[in-house]
Amino acid sequence: MNKGALDRAFNPRCVAVVGDKMGNGYVWLRSMSTFRGKVYSVQIDPQELPGIERLGIENYSSLLEIPESVDYVVVAVPRSVVPRIVSDCIRKGVGGATIFTSGFAETNTREGKDLEDALAKMAKEADFNIIGPNCMGIFNPKIGIRHDVNQYHGEAGPVGFISQSGTHAILFSLVGACNGIRISKSVSYGNGVVLDSTDYLEYLAQDQETEIIGMYIEGVKEGTRFLHCLSETTRKKPVLVWKGGKAEEGYRAISCHTGSMASSPTIWRSMIRQCGAIEVDNLDQMIDCVKAFLYLKAPLGSSVGLVAQSGGQSVVIADAFAQAGLTAPMLSRSTYREFASFFNIIGGNYLNPLDISWHAPSIDDSIRILNILSTDENVDSLVLELSLPFLSQIWDYYPSYVDTLVKALGDFKDRCPKSFMIVISSGQLEVEALGIRKKLIDKGVPSFPNFERAAKALRTVTEYYRSCGDSD
Amino acid sequence: MNKGALDRAFNPRCVAVVGDKMGNGYVWLRSMSTFRGKVYSVQIDPQELPGIERLGIENYSSLLEIPESVDYVVVAVPRSVVPRIVSDCIRKGVGGATIFTSGFAETNTREGKDLEDALAKMAKEADFNIIGPNCMGIFNPKIGIRHDVNQYHGEAGPVGFISQSGTHAILFSLVGACNGIRISKSVSYGNGVVLDSTDYLEYLAQDQETEIIGMYIEGVKEGTRFLHCLSETTRKKPVLVWKGGKAEEGYRAISCHTGSMASSPTIWRSMIRQCGAIEVDNLDQMIDCVKAFLYLKAPLGSSVGLVAQSGGQSVVIADAFAQAGLTAPMLSRSTYREFASFFNIIGGNYLNPLDISWHAPSIDDSIRILNILSTDENVDSLVLELSLPFLSQIWDYYPSYVDTLVKALGDFKDRCPKSFMIVISSGQLEVEALGIRKKLIDKGVPSFPNFERAAKALRTVTEYYRSCGDSD
Repeated sequence: MNKGALDRAFNPRCVAVVGDKMGNGYVWLRSMSTFRGKVYSVQIDPQELPGIERLGIENYSSLLEIPESVDYVVVAVPRSVVPRIVSDCIRKGVGGATIFTSGFAETNTREGKDLEDALAKMAKEADFNIIGPNCMGIFNPKIGIRHDVNQYHGEAGPVGFISQSGTHAILFSLVGACNGIRISKSVSYGNGVVLDSTDYLEYLAQDQETEIIGMYIEGVKEGTRFLHCLSETTRKKPVLVWKGGKAEEGYRAISCHTGSMASSPTIWRSMIRQCGAIEVDNLDQMIDCVKAFLYLKAPLGSSVGLVAQSGGQSVVIADAFAQAGLTAPMLSRSTYREFASFFNIIGGNYLNPLDISWHAPSIDDSIRILNILSTDENVDSLVLELSLPFLSQIWDYYPSYVDTLVKALGDFKDRCPKSFMIVISSGQLEVEALGIRKKLIDKGVPSFPNFERAAKALRTVTEYYRSCGDSD
Repeated sequence: MNKGALDRAFNPRCVAVVGDKMGNGYVWLRSMSTFRGKVYSVQIDPQELPGIERLGIENYSSLLEIPESVDYVVVAVPRSVVPRIVSDCIRKGVGGATIFTSGFAETNTREGKDLEDALAKMAKEADFNIIGPNCMGIFNPKIGIRHDVNQYHGEAGPVGFISQSGTHAILFSLVGACNGIRISKSVSYGNGVVLDSTDYLEYLAQDQETEIIGMYIEGVKEGTRFLHCLSETTRKKPVLVWKGGKAEEGYRAISCHTGSMASSPTIWRSMIRQCGAIEVDNLDQMIDCVKAFLYLKAPLGSSVGLVAQSGGQSVVIADAFAQAGLTAPMLSRSTYREFASFFNIIGGNYLNPLDISWHAPSIDDSIRILNILSTDENVDSLVLELSLPFLSQIWDYYPSYVDTLVKALGDFKDRCPKSFMIVISSGQLEVEALGIRKKLIDKGVPSFPNFERAAKALRTVTEYYRSCGDSD
């Protein structure tokens, strides 16, 4: 890896897209429309030129003709033309190139493999950074470098994402944005013939804007180097690893998807854990755990105070958190004394889990109960259920109810010294639940769509900080 | 159980609500506003009378004054008054009464336990059907008997639901309605002091309108009778059991919620399986599995043909289904021959899982691929991913795209002899996903919000039909 050049590719001032076309919806040029720097097109097909002109983008017939230095290139030409463009990139002194084009080793054909080998050889001899092929390359939202037209720009966050799959890179950014997760830099690297997962991990480990790293990996090329790098990185920041291809069927898909050799899931699992990384199993878990890291205060232990808005949910919230390995202990004597002074136990209960049925409509009561729990020494984290079918009967009459509730919960979170999360039981109000999730996260309060997902995320964060404490 | 009388309570022609009031939002009288028969109120507080009158409901100061026979009564009076009202019900010859009132054994107080014992004694001596106390009672949507104002009415379906918790009964009906699940009869029975889970199971086992039964149970009173009844019932229709209170914390919540004694989760699990029932762990799984039973053709085996709309998703769809115990086998030679004649493998793959990236925008291509898979003898079930971030780039230009796609998938499902399900990868388009789920289920096509949930539901249905085959 040529680190200085890769830095230019991740933080370019000038970008060129080679071979974008109408048939592809000009997806690359449109994605780059938010880029703060200069974007050029390189296209020789005269039929494509009017479309590119309509986008307001200057076109050249060769990279070499662009009248300034180019930091980052996206290559979207037919596979047989790729080597010539890469050669132009090298001559032009480009920082790095994303090869969007597919049709290489992942086709399991002689032709594809030969083309990929030629590409790798050329790049390695010239110490040139190829991202891909068969990938979506870089997403740097702060400066508007995108690989999908639906992605945000102009705002950024502390989360780095490294993904062998373009789909998962894009989905993480889109679903993440709905969950208050903003990206520093993300990269989809496909077949990874020159730069592989380890190179990107090394890069984001050093990146000052990146405080937490998520990875979607199908297979790595240099196992020992990867594990060493992973161990080094987890000492500085949390790393969450989602390994695709755990089953035989997954292996088969991988060999067709990115041409990687996948290794046994059991070996992966133990390796990843030994390196201090956190294993997740799918996109939802990745989103949940990253959100928990970003928005939860570090839990000091595994005890939770569980607050449900009905008796039925008090049973299943307890089940979910216990099954995730957390405990809902009996509370302290002073807490019970305080609850006994006002808590209505007819149709409710305050043992832990709490069923606050009769108090739930009152925001004051709810906050009072949370305040009491937050000072109980037996409790490390607090979880509150919001049941929308139940609360909707209030907001039908008081339209400002939700905003008042959300503000009160945001204020509580700010002053609560313990980790605090919400579980939204949406019932049929699924659209409303999305709106409330958004309002909550805007106030810094993380919410989860069911008890199981909340419990897993809290367990992950709790374990992480416990192991940090152990190693101190 | 007095079966004839219980039949009257489940299918009443005349209903009375005792003690509903403004402070409770007249929730019972409002819920009953959809009832096709006659509803009376019984209320002696003069302050409540104008509100009841505004609802257009005739009020009496005693049950005994109502000038006709009453089949079903909801009792919402303070707990100390409950025995007197039950005594009136008995004198009046009511079919059954739901005691909504709480404050009995679940409070763990002497007073509450004594009241509950007195109630049980009175009812048993008179062979009177008490539903509850501390519950929401009956939901019979066809005739408009509801226990929540958000529930539907006028339409019904083949699903019976028995729930110790009112919240879970209501949530199942509301979330179920979003998922194409319609209820025949449902009951929330709380503390279950007179009629318990076994009685309701026996009742729904015989009910001709009920083809599948879901249960949320915290604990049963007569274990042997329950297991016998469960075994008998599963010979006639699928029974799904969700056991609340699997952890110590859950036990604690249960004793406060419905006053039940919960038994060890391991014992429960093995008992339930031996009886031929299906165990689910939460509301989502209950919904998913019931939906799968309602909308999937019986799979002949555990082989799946998996179709993803990108390479990254082809890897994780394979992982999810394999981890659920299903297999994605290599396809037959003739299938591969047919695919080879048109399938673009540059950026795609048809081994199984399939990555149909380049064909996905074409509805014709997608259906062609599904048709080929549906005739492959190696495949028992078909799963298709719809990736909304990807498809939205098409529907942005062709607004009728989604409807055309949904119609084509509905037509395919109708003629496909195998089980067929959709997984919607919503990305950021979460609201749109809900709309598409609705359109699909209206055409009889079940969809699931992620691969894991789809895989679990398919596995459950596959195992059920395999074990039916074994016992034939």
